[in-house]
Amino acid sequence: MEIPGLEPLAAETFELLKRVSVATIATQLFKLGLRSRAMTGVGPILADTRMVGEAVTLRYGPTREDLDQPEKLSSPENPQRKAIDTISPGQVLVTDARGDLRCGTLGDILATRLKARGASGFVTDGAVRDSPGIRQVGLPCYARGTHPNANFHALHALDINVPIGCAEVLVLPGDVVVGDGEGVIVIPRHLADQVARSARDQEELEQFILQKIGGGMSLFGVYPANEQTREEFERWRAARRRG
Amino acid sequence: MEIPGLEPLAAETFELLKRVSVATIATQLFKLGLRSRAMTGVGPILADTRMVGEAVTLRYGPTREDLDQPEKLSSPENPQRKAIDTISPGQVLVTDARGDLRCGTLGDILATRLKARGASGFVTDGAVRDSPGIRQVGLPCYARGTHPNANFHALHALDINVPIGCAEVLVLPGDVVVGDGEGVIVIPRHLADQVARSARDQEELEQFILQKIGGGMSLFGVYPANEQTREEFERWRAARRRG
Amino acid sequence: MEIPGLEPLAAETFELLKRVSVATIATQLFKLGLRSRAMTGVGPILADTRMVGEAVTLRYGPTREDLDQPEKLSSPENPQRKAIDTISPGQVLVTDARGDLRCGTLGDILATRLKARGASGFVTDGAVRDSPGIRQVGLPCYARGTHPNANFHALHALDINVPIGCAEVLVLPGDVVVGDGEGVIVIPRHLADQVARSARDQEELEQFILQKIGGGMSLFGVYPANEQTREEFERWRAARRRG
Amino acid sequence: MEIPGLEPLAAETFELLKRVSVATIATQLFKLGLRSRAMTGVGPILADTRMVGEAVTLRYGPTREDLDQPEKLSSPENPQRKAIDTISPGQVLVTDARGDLRCGTLGDILATRLKARGASGFVTDGAVRDSPGIRQVGLPCYARGTHPNANFHALHALDINVPIGCAEVLVLPGDVVVGDGEGVIVIPRHLADQVARSARDQEELEQFILQKIGGGMSLFGVYPANEQTREEFERWRAARRRG
Amino acid sequence: MEIPGLEPLAAETFELLKRVSVATIATQLFKLGLRSRAMTGVGPILADTRMVGEAVTLRYGPTREDLDQPEKLSSPENPQRKAIDTISPGQVLVTDARGDLRCGTLGDILATRLKARGASGFVTDGAVRDSPGIRQVGLPCYARGTHPNANFHALHALDINVPIGCAEVLVLPGDVVVGDGEGVIVIPRHLADQVARSARDQEELEQFILQKIGGGMSLFGVYPANEQTREEFERWRAARRRG
Amino acid sequence: MEIPGLEPLAAETFELLKRVSVATIATQLFKLGLRSRAMTGVGPILADTRMVGEAVTLRYGPTREDLDQPEKLSSPENPQRKAIDTISPGQVLVTDARGDLRCGTLGDILATRLKARGASGFVTDGAVRDSPGIRQVGLPCYARGTHPNANFHALHALDINVPIGCAEVLVLPGDVVVGDGEGVIVIPRHLADQVARSARDQEELEQFILQKIGGGMSLFGVYPANEQTREEFERWRAARRRG
Repeated sequence: MEIPGLEPLAAETFELLKRVSVATIATQLFKLGLRSRAMTGVGPILADTRMVGEAVTLRYGPTREDLDQPEKLSSPENPQRKAIDTISPGQVLVTDARGDLRCGTLGDILATRLKARGASGFVTDGAVRDSPGIRQVGLPCYARGTHPNANFHALHALDINVPIGCAEVLVLPGDVVVGDGEGVIVIPRHLADQVARSARDQEELEQFILQKIGGGMSLFGVYPANEQTREEFERWRAARRRG
Repeated sequence: MEIPGLEPLAAETFELLKRVSVATIATQLFKLGLRSRAMTGVGPILADTRMVGEAVTLRYGPTREDLDQPEKLSSPENPQRKAIDTISPGQVLVTDARGDLRCGTLGDILATRLKARGASGFVTDGAVRDSPGIRQVGLPCYARGTHPNANFHALHALDINVPIGCAEVLVLPGDVVVGDGEGVIVIPRHLADQVARSARDQEELEQFILQKIGGGMSLFGVYPANEQTREEFERWRAARRRG
Repeated sequence: MEIPGLEPLAAETFELLKRVSVATIATQLFKLGLRSRAMTGVGPILADTRMVGEAVTLRYGPTREDLDQPEKLSSPENPQRKAIDTISPGQVLVTDARGDLRCGTLGDILATRLKARGASGFVTDGAVRDSPGIRQVGLPCYARGTHPNANFHALHALDINVPIGCAEVLVLPGDVVVGDGEGVIVIPRHLADQVARSARDQEELEQFILQKIGGGMSLFGVYPANEQTREEFERWRAARRRG
Repeated sequence: MEIPGLEPLAAETFELLKRVSVATIATQLFKLGLRSRAMTGVGPILADTRMVGEAVTLRYGPTREDLDQPEKLSSPENPQRKAIDTISPGQVLVTDARGDLRCGTLGDILATRLKARGASGFVTDGAVRDSPGIRQVGLPCYARGTHPNANFHALHALDINVPIGCAEVLVLPGDVVVGDGEGVIVIPRHLADQVARSARDQEELEQFILQKIGGGMSLFGVYPANEQTREEFERWRAARRRG
Repeated sequence: MEIPGLEPLAAETFELLKRVSVATIATQLFKLGLRSRAMTGVGPILADTRMVGEAVTLRYGPTREDLDQPEKLSSPENPQRKAIDTISPGQVLVTDARGDLRCGTLGDILATRLKARGASGFVTDGAVRDSPGIRQVGLPCYARGTHPNANFHALHALDINVPIGCAEVLVLPGDVVVGDGEGVIVIPRHLADQVARSARDQEELEQFILQKIGGGMSLFGVYPANEQTREEFERWRAARRRG
Repeated sequence: MEIPGLEPLAAETFELLKRVSVATIATQLFKLGLRSRAMTGVGPILADTRMVGEAVTLRYGPTREDLDQPEKLSSPENPQRKAIDTISPGQVLVTDARGDLRCGTLGDILATRLKARGASGFVTDGAVRDSPGIRQVGLPCYARGTHPNANFHALHALDINVPIGCAEVLVLPGDVVVGDGEGVIVIPRHLADQVARSARDQEELEQFILQKIGGGMSLFGVYPANEQTREEFERWRAARRRG
């Protein structure tokens, strides 16, 4: 699904983001003045999941009994079906399900279609259904819960690719979405290249710090690193890169 | 604010709806298969409020610190300001504030502008601010709470006149919104004429029933009314209309 | 409605309980080892309400669409209608509405019937509807909220006069229910005579204390009262009774 | 435990229900007008659980300190102990724990007794305790959480085999309860035969659909299936049955 | 109660703060980078309350049955009693009640003592009790609810004059606390003089704006004010001050 | 970290507590009149965890933007860092995170430091971050959730070793904290020796009971055990000890 007007990203950005934790990205965004870009309460359906992609969005409202009947799902204009059927490789479908946990907004058949389209993953602030089946499909999926009901039990699909809120995070189409075994964070697109690099740097430093702390050193001077620790780190990193 | 493509309503509809309770409308909509059209947790800022009007909608997402600064409010494209500045007489501004109670989405100056425009009222599933001032303005206002913070503390205005959810009710632009001293209900536009008449009928019957119950009659046969009670009611109503 | 097997209460108990606050009764019950007999979140629909009576109970479950239709309310076996239609003077209808705030379990017609029957009041851990009308009826009513929907929108009446939970308090038929401008408390029937007397005593002492504290005395020694304060109180009370 | 007055079920019903997902049953019940029969927030204590059985019910109220002491559990009239001690093979004990997560309503010894009696499983909208031990017992158990406290910390057992609410679902004794790796659904008994067959049919169709979607087909025309897809499916099924 | 090490405040600060709304102060603090200084969910027990003072703090933990008995309240070291008995004129007692609404942390006798001491008010993120009595005392009181239970039912008083959280706001002893008919805000002490003046300026401007908007002007250019509006305002203010 | 003034514990206490379940301890404390010493909603980050230790405490308040910046963490007076850097072997760090789930209060580096110091574990009523990394460290960790944000996103560290509330349990420094695969309980220090022994006794009895129930016996007379069962148990235990 084409999202018009997006600035291109650096070639290495997705690769870098695949190798850093969501926690590290959260700290980098905090330093840029963005306090709340990691979702609250949204976790992976399968342990050890990793996901990076570009956000396409889907928005739900509350159900209305006369509008939300199973047969309406066959319409080519149904926003949920259209979003899933036309998503592009490398995209993540992020859905504003109003935090409603009384129905699921993805089942095993739809997850299979997302995977067949090459989507990078699925994120909702509601629930998914057929969760045992979704685990078998293997698509990275993040949700606040699972529920056997279909989406029309409680929700009404409204729009594709408008800005949405998901788990208290503002998500614009084209934002960069990263997930790991803990949660999901949404990087404003114009910051993605910068954050990818600074997160990589932070993780290298923290690898060094972890080694020292694991060896019995005090936190003070080391975490956060003072001048001396940073210099040691620079030498360690230089040596490692040579090595 | 013009809402394109709306069917006209019967001349008497708004008049009828002003004289019936929201509770009565809820029962009429239930009988048409719509279980959840009355908002939960949304009440009047001023006791004894009554409101009828056509919905125009405003949608918020979560705040993003770099986008949501007070100076952004001066943009003619700010959806909140635009909605309030261009609303038409007889319209009600219904806002999807994501149920967020950490900021207010209307203050006394904006309420004054709504009133100057001839708006019929304001509804939010979030909070209002400057509530002592809003009470003085006298515009019918319904909210889930009050909070001193401005909307940019927690919310980001996104759209005007798209379908929204508000307090778990799907609201389409042009839907008919009715408020009383208890709460708010949203009638799908195509049902408004029918519901206005049937609600009027129900209230006439209940006035008759209330008189009988107040006089000491048992509920059974009277509330709900059986054949005999309905016949008595028809005679009572006919007499009253003559009289 | 007769509740079988109840022990009689002392003649003065209801009179004493009408003159003490719910807060005072809560302290007396705490001293008897009962920590949680005052309801949480349940308040009066009308300010300055006072209520004392014997509990009759009504229990709801969640709604089931095929069972809960308005026409079912005409059945003489509908537990809600039956409870309201057969309540006796001096009784309070206490309803377990599962804490559900998406519908009301009493409207103005039913409140009118309760009043005509001589009921002392109504308590629910859910909502009431037609609340502006209920205020006019004048029956003491306590609830956690108000909602325009009728009970069949979300609830299904199940039983009369079984033990229930209401706002986290276990209520047995025949328990003594007391309400004031703040809230509601439920006294196990076998403790009602004792608690009525000890609450009266506490309030007399607190009246004396309030006078001293209002006059500028320190809390220590006075509230709680030490030996000396108690002796002063005894003299004050004796003097006052002589009058 | 005998439940009086139950209609017999078709011989194949339990077998069919063991092989379909709860999500599929939820859709079939929705089509019959029942929107909310799958429990919200109730999940299996052990992954990959499957359970089918007939509901027997147990109801709790809030605790009262003088009534709820450990020694009261030895009474042959204690409803919790009686329900567990007299349950019959093929029955599922469904408990209304008021959604209270501050104590557990089943421990490893009681789970062992349920299993020894041949019970099909246990469902609560509260918590279970001794959850590591319960996992070893292997009885299918569904709950909203786990808590080390015993039930008398927060709850008081009241009744056996009355209609109850559990996780916002009305449960009548004799209803058919089905659980899988995702959740629990309660089928009104008179619909169980019909739903078992239609769920089986839906799962066959979805197996066919999943194959097509996995093979790269678009959702439209396939899910939901249009006339042509249904015809293909009929041929596929006929072939498979022959095969 | 003396709070050591506090910087003095400008003489006019309290006077200025008495005349501005909490909503205005919230905006001024936002402009200084402090997003969340207004309490959420805390409102006045009496409508039309106004309060300004210096924070003294009281901290509660959860109750422990053996420690929290009514007789413990007579100890001169009980932190609640000590705080109330030694508060100084112009101070506001702010209590961290853990957001617990199952008991009250102030009753009418204690409110009377606070008033006799000259305290400016009382704030809690929990409940107060004896609320009808507290209304008669007339001390400005802010809370999240009311409950008949005494504090020992659910809470245990721990400390006086340590930093606390109250309704999600960090409160340091000596911070300046302001309340109006809507809510409560806490100004870090070192910002109080500056915020008092800038809030006064904002309110003067908004008075001018309100007049224009009430007269039918558009929001744009006026609210927020552009250059031209600001110049008009300067002339208006100058004229008014002369006048 | 030394906690002044603690009474010594019996040599065997920690050993006994390692071998009993938290559920058993909860029952023993209930019998001593302490109803709520097991935490609600706090579970192990890693399944099959066991933990016993002495509580040291850390207290958080809400964040204040100017105080809570990453660079503040390098101060030797930062309470979080100080607590973690100076904890002693056999101690458990229990943190009052205000139940806030919008940030984590422990990450993999800090968990590594706790482990290097010989700490027995970590407990919070908030979240941890870097949870995949924490799982690898292997320190027993209990939390209400996980979140990628660092603590300064939402919290401000205030104190070390003061009494705190954690998940609705009052925790005094030096209290004995026990965790298993289900949850966490806090034993008041002066009761630890007694409870360790009585819990051991209860578990022996329940092992005997479990055997009988597993063998098909009725609950009545066995669980709870009557005189006869207790005598059988005494013989069984005596035999086993000889054996």
